[in-house]
Amino acid sequence: MSKIAVLGTGNVGDTIGSKLLEVGHTVMMGSRTADNEKAKAFVAKHNGKASAGTFADAAAFGEIIFNCTAGVGSIEALTLAGEKNLNGKIIVDIANPLDFSKGMPPTLAICNTHSLGEEIQKAFPQTHVVKALNTMWCGIMVNPAMINGGDHSTFVSGNDASAKEEVKKILKSFGWAEKNILDLGDITKARGTEMYLPLWLSIYGATNNGAFNVKIVS
Amino acid sequence: MSKIAVLGTGNVGDTIGSKLLEVGHTVMMGSRTADNEKAKAFVAKHNGKASAGTFADAAAFGEIIFNCTAGVGSIEALTLAGEKNLNGKIIVDIANPLDFSKGMPPTLAICNTHSLGEEIQKAFPQTHVVKALNTMWCGIMVNPAMINGGDHSTFVSGNDASAKEEVKKILKSFGWAEKNILDLGDITKARGTEMYLPLWLSIYGATNNGAFNVKIVS
Repeated sequence: MSKIAVLGTGNVGDTIGSKLLEVGHTVMMGSRTADNEKAKAFVAKHNGKASAGTFADAAAFGEIIFNCTAGVGSIEALTLAGEKNLNGKIIVDIANPLDFSKGMPPTLAICNTHSLGEEIQKAFPQTHVVKALNTMWCGIMVNPAMINGGDHSTFVSGNDASAKEEVKKILKSFGWAEKNILDLGDITKARGTEMYLPLWLSIYGATNNGAFNVKIVS
Repeated sequence: MSKIAVLGTGNVGDTIGSKLLEVGHTVMMGSRTADNEKAKAFVAKHNGKASAGTFADAAAFGEIIFNCTAGVGSIEALTLAGEKNLNGKIIVDIANPLDFSKGMPPTLAICNTHSLGEEIQKAFPQTHVVKALNTMWCGIMVNPAMINGGDHSTFVSGNDASAKEEVKKILKSFGWAEKNILDLGDITKARGTEMYLPLWLSIYGATNNGAFNVKIVS
């Protein structure tokens, strides 16, 4: 079991952090300020098994870092976390660079020839960024059995094979079957999983149901 | 049964044109020149049941137009087809704006705040553009039963409800089950299906198999 930093206090961070605790890890939730109300509520909900602090506190604590911040603020959040606190560690990047500033539906702040996953890897070259889980609603991320008996697809991409293996272990502890975790290759493959978001949003809009995922069939 | 123009003589045009003939339509294949070798081979292969001509010949002939040209050349091809030959007709846009000019993997020539489907609709406002089938290898487009017993997902988007119904009828004649054809909404939803291409290419690259599709599970 590992010490894990969860950066971000939104639904995604709360959901991921709670699941990580459930499967036995120790979790510190990080946010911009040490007295974030949502982080305090997260700690209280888990009867003191979790802790909270600044992005830097959490990153220093964590052996593995989950980036659950809003994608357009992720580089800033990680910069606040501090390169020295991140170096040598795995950053599991589950954020999407959704830009809501131009109205709905959101566009991507970065795409096509770049991706958020790559930008994080470039900004923090001594970390091992693994893009994962960003292609679905967070409820499904931590509970794949909720739909289709757990039989549907999730993706990992990143430059470091052993970092991807570590992340796969965590995904399996969340309930993902080995056969349903597809390694797409290096971190440039984050472009594909991030650019899938507009289709995800369209499917959500057409079906009024966010509790779906795609299963690759062949 | 309809008279259908298939614009484009590549694998996609050949595959779509052959299937349209098989299910009983009359097909004219259109290309830049009236004596295109691939178009002549297509006609010969079908024992004279098909015909071939310029983009304009085909568009004038067709009651429905399938855009099977390379996405980066589609606007030019449709311009050669001629607005007067296209007006009032359904354009089934199955192209993707893949740009191979910057090396592999290809990027998208247009995405995020725009899409090829929308650009075609804007350039030819008196047509009814329906984006369809662009999320898979052409072999699956016309033979969904090839994988998973035919049980996987395809999308339509466009501004005209009756045009989408016409296209759904054609998809059903190709073997698509009603429940697997998801209407995403208006033509702006083409952004999502076109931006899925980088993920499609990544999955193809990771699995060395293009004969796959996604099935939405919930």
